[in-house]
Amino acid sequence: MQLAELGEWELLRRLSAFAPAGQLEDDAALLSERSGRTLVINTDVLVEGVHFSDATVSARDLGWRAAAANLSDLAAMGSTSVAGITVGLVAPGETPWRWVEQVYEGFAEALERFGGVLLGGDCSSGVQRLLAITALGHLGNGSIRRGDGRPGDWLICSGPHGLSRLGLALLQNTYPEDQRTHLSQTLQAEAIRAHQRPIPRLDVVQQLNALQPPESPWRVGGTDSSDGLHLAVHNIARASGCAASLERAALPMAAEFTAVPWAEDWCLSGGEDFELVLALEPSWAEALCSQMPGCTHIGYLVAGEGGSMSWAEDGQRLDPSIGGYCHFQ
Amino acid sequence: MQLAELGEWELLRRLSAFAPAGQLEDDAALLSERSGRTLVINTDVLVEGVHFSDATVSARDLGWRAAAANLSDLAAMGSTSVAGITVGLVAPGETPWRWVEQVYEGFAEALERFGGVLLGGDCSSGVQRLLAITALGHLGNGSIRRGDGRPGDWLICSGPHGLSRLGLALLQNTYPEDQRTHLSQTLQAEAIRAHQRPIPRLDVVQQLNALQPPESPWRVGGTDSSDGLHLAVHNIARASGCAASLERAALPMAAEFTAVPWAEDWCLSGGEDFELVLALEPSWAEALCSQMPGCTHIGYLVAGEGGSMSWAEDGQRLDPSIGGYCHFQ
Repeated sequence: MQLAELGEWELLRRLSAFAPAGQLEDDAALLSERSGRTLVINTDVLVEGVHFSDATVSARDLGWRAAAANLSDLAAMGSTSVAGITVGLVAPGETPWRWVEQVYEGFAEALERFGGVLLGGDCSSGVQRLLAITALGHLGNGSIRRGDGRPGDWLICSGPHGLSRLGLALLQNTYPEDQRTHLSQTLQAEAIRAHQRPIPRLDVVQQLNALQPPESPWRVGGTDSSDGLHLAVHNIARASGCAASLERAALPMAAEFTAVPWAEDWCLSGGEDFELVLALEPSWAEALCSQMPGCTHIGYLVAGEGGSMSWAEDGQRLDPSIGGYCHFQ
Repeated sequence: MQLAELGEWELLRRLSAFAPAGQLEDDAALLSERSGRTLVINTDVLVEGVHFSDATVSARDLGWRAAAANLSDLAAMGSTSVAGITVGLVAPGETPWRWVEQVYEGFAEALERFGGVLLGGDCSSGVQRLLAITALGHLGNGSIRRGDGRPGDWLICSGPHGLSRLGLALLQNTYPEDQRTHLSQTLQAEAIRAHQRPIPRLDVVQQLNALQPPESPWRVGGTDSSDGLHLAVHNIARASGCAASLERAALPMAAEFTAVPWAEDWCLSGGEDFELVLALEPSWAEALCSQMPGCTHIGYLVAGEGGSMSWAEDGQRLDPSIGGYCHFQ
């Protein structure tokens, strides 16, 4: 049996047998410190030709993106602060030093903005450029877990979706020229920025911590939307043993995004938006949406078949096959 | 300027500008916890065709080796315990699942033996098999730093050197057949084992901690010998601003190792022995050598040109060009 036949999800399921129970089901791993604080650890690998290409991302943006994607997983696990990152760099000998330098400038920019330092790393020659990043941070009041949602929770998300996918299409010149004229310059710039300079939502986790209602215990379901909004909601619902009801009219889109003919598809499964999707009890959710610009209420967790998703308006099921990128296949 | 022209050491020197001062000069990075404990973090990348090959290491041994090499860096920094590792796995789609499973079995075996758990990770398709591992552990009484040696310190090492290089030659069938008959079966088995199943010397660090003389402050110079004994001693001497005087008659070799025609070369720069090389004040060093089987006194740090090395017997300089593997060149 080859990895191509298994696919990424089945591979990860099998590998989870080697880790403590539940360890690989969430966005990052937790390690308790004697002080009572909890360290959050996440490793991501980015491979040229799979995750990035010189055609769409400059070296500096690549460094930023690679750090940001990792920090987004820390935020998705409940981190409110970043300790740092380690970087494993692989590149062929003919790689220009200037490229490497700019990638590290991108790391430095992201760490300057979001906190933490470069905690060392390793480098090696290899046939393909590649970055393996491990990010370390600390939990706030508690962890965010995919399986901690309950029926009745509001599903909220921290910002618009689909922009990164639009940015990619514009950068790759795969967006139809005749359609492009319908997009405002503002939207195009916002989309390209979303693709090149995503923001890990540590600010949302900080606000979530600050707004925890005094009478409520910490219980936050959630994940980030790096693999698409649809998959994020599905993963929360499945792990929480709930169904999800989404309001089609409340899909989180940027202003004028409906000028994109594939607006709904890209919003649901464009991927790489790096927003947070949370399942929260209504009063906490409402407080967060009122305090955090861009946070919106997109639906509910409800009793039902774990992981199933339907539209609130007409009860129609969402196609479960819409999903994120699957490696090896 | 390409990486091939820079070489690995110059690349690392340039990258150190992006990390806190001194961060990249040692074997691993340190992160203080609020509890007063210190976390040790190390990232290594192992690339097929550069660091490993199916011809010489089984998948299971590869997993063990990859974990062990990382944990050796934790030990070299002063770790007495292991918290865990994260693994970034890259492999082409046609890679057999069985290979991946055996690599993870090797990780699990090493963690079972040395402590810690699998703290998650990531996987991706890519053209070349590759493992990016980040190991986390905790310091004992203090850190071991390359630059903490002083003139008068004993140089000691924790075990024989050159065995891993001999094991590699035997496994690659590059060891001359007519010479092989001069090697005992015991030595051959020991050499192959040293190459396939290296042992990170956390036990030596634990003993070092236990034997710290009550009147002495913590001050331990040192590193591991993953890039060869010669380079380890050179790096300690250079970072400590001392010269090193090595006793040729005390070179740490396994029994019967002198049957190898290149015994001295391989002992000095065969590499991948993963022993510890330490610079310690004499009474502490003597206590460690007497308590820890295999630990031997190999020379001294002395006042002199930083990083220079000579034989104690005749004062002759060691060739500074003998060094470890240099990537990209």
